[in-house]
Amino acid sequence: MQPIAFIRSPFVEKFGIPRQSGLAQRVVSRIVFVPEFSHPDFTRGIDQFSHIWIIWGFHCNTHDAGESFHATVRPPRLGGNQRMGVFATRSPYRPNELGLSAVRLLAVNEDGSLSIGGADMVDGTPVYDIKPYLPYADALPGAQAGFAAEKPDAALRIVWQDSCGKEALSEGHIQALEEILAQDPRPAYHDAPDRVYHLCYSLFELDFSVENSVLRVLRIKHRS
Amino acid sequence: MQPIAFIRSPFVEKFGIPRQSGLAQRVVSRIVFVPEFSHPDFTRGIDQFSHIWIIWGFHCNTHDAGESFHATVRPPRLGGNQRMGVFATRSPYRPNELGLSAVRLLAVNEDGSLSIGGADMVDGTPVYDIKPYLPYADALPGAQAGFAAEKPDAALRIVWQDSCGKEALSEGHIQALEEILAQDPRPAYHDAPDRVYHLCYSLFELDFSVENSVLRVLRIKHRS
Repeated sequence: MQPIAFIRSPFVEKFGIPRQSGLAQRVVSRIVFVPEFSHPDFTRGIDQFSHIWIIWGFHCNTHDAGESFHATVRPPRLGGNQRMGVFATRSPYRPNELGLSAVRLLAVNEDGSLSIGGADMVDGTPVYDIKPYLPYADALPGAQAGFAAEKPDAALRIVWQDSCGKEALSEGHIQALEEILAQDPRPAYHDAPDRVYHLCYSLFELDFSVENSVLRVLRIKHRS
Repeated sequence: MQPIAFIRSPFVEKFGIPRQSGLAQRVVSRIVFVPEFSHPDFTRGIDQFSHIWIIWGFHCNTHDAGESFHATVRPPRLGGNQRMGVFATRSPYRPNELGLSAVRLLAVNEDGSLSIGGADMVDGTPVYDIKPYLPYADALPGAQAGFAAEKPDAALRIVWQDSCGKEALSEGHIQALEEILAQDPRPAYHDAPDRVYHLCYSLFELDFSVENSVLRVLRIKHRS
């Protein structure tokens, strides 16, 4: 296994990344091929597809005591207090550490890279395969999915505090951040209204706090 | 990367395997975990899901001259005479040789193995990951898919010739084989009514020929 490409994304770190692909459609990332696979022949015809699969590596996993996975994990959507088998979840801590994401193909760029929307990958993620999304085989809208059946709530209302520095952000970044923040990036069941969280996104760092389903952006500054 | 499991399937060889998962739903296969991952904890809760993803290896690829892929391939559904980029296809001959299939989860067996329906994998295929199918993230029925938008025709009518030995087959095998054969297992655009093809399936070998959209099963015998 060798990476065929790497992801360039505005997610500088894991904190804030939506829990699946497609939850923050306005997030624009790029797939940049390594030289061996950068010839445009490799993607000839891919522009006929609106969506593609990416098989990628969870390269940001920390390996406490050298261990990369356990047989069971505690999915955040079960409140973090119930154990499920790792193969019954999409946890990043899994044997072989492979991720799977369906993303929107926005453009095939002149330099051969692919612009994609809705990716849930941190900047620098290695990509092992790209496949076209085939609705007749891949789209199973009636599939049953137990504890993970519903789309996670994007329930937080976003308030950009006056003088937070919002004007430093482009309209595209603002729209993407509103999708990301509405998903509630806090660890499962955190409820500490006085706590200030820090989210790194693209060239920026945002400070925010959450109280009563309102997420308040306190300050935006350029990352140093 | 190490296999977490291997597929036990009635597809003894590549010939006859449908071109995507889900095209022959009656085909029942099993995912048998390697000892390291066979503890039932690893799949705890997976029975809440009707479908699962399998990321697997195309281990049957032949490597002429040591080469495992080319930048472009000729997809069978384009008649085999038009080249597309390998990342714009689901061709098995691709960098890293990873396959991706959505299959129906039929049962979690007492021995810990998983029974699945609709798999498109040859017996002995190595499995690298299993993930639950999440409709809210994975099901994109409106996705555009250009040259691969339509489900391949299952257009052949099956005739079991008298005295072909059909009675040796179970009802389940007959139903699965009717789905498989209707997909037309012949190489793209073969049209040789006199030719006899041989399909190995489970313990059996079938001889058949095709003329005017009718596939005639000529003989069934036990594989030696």
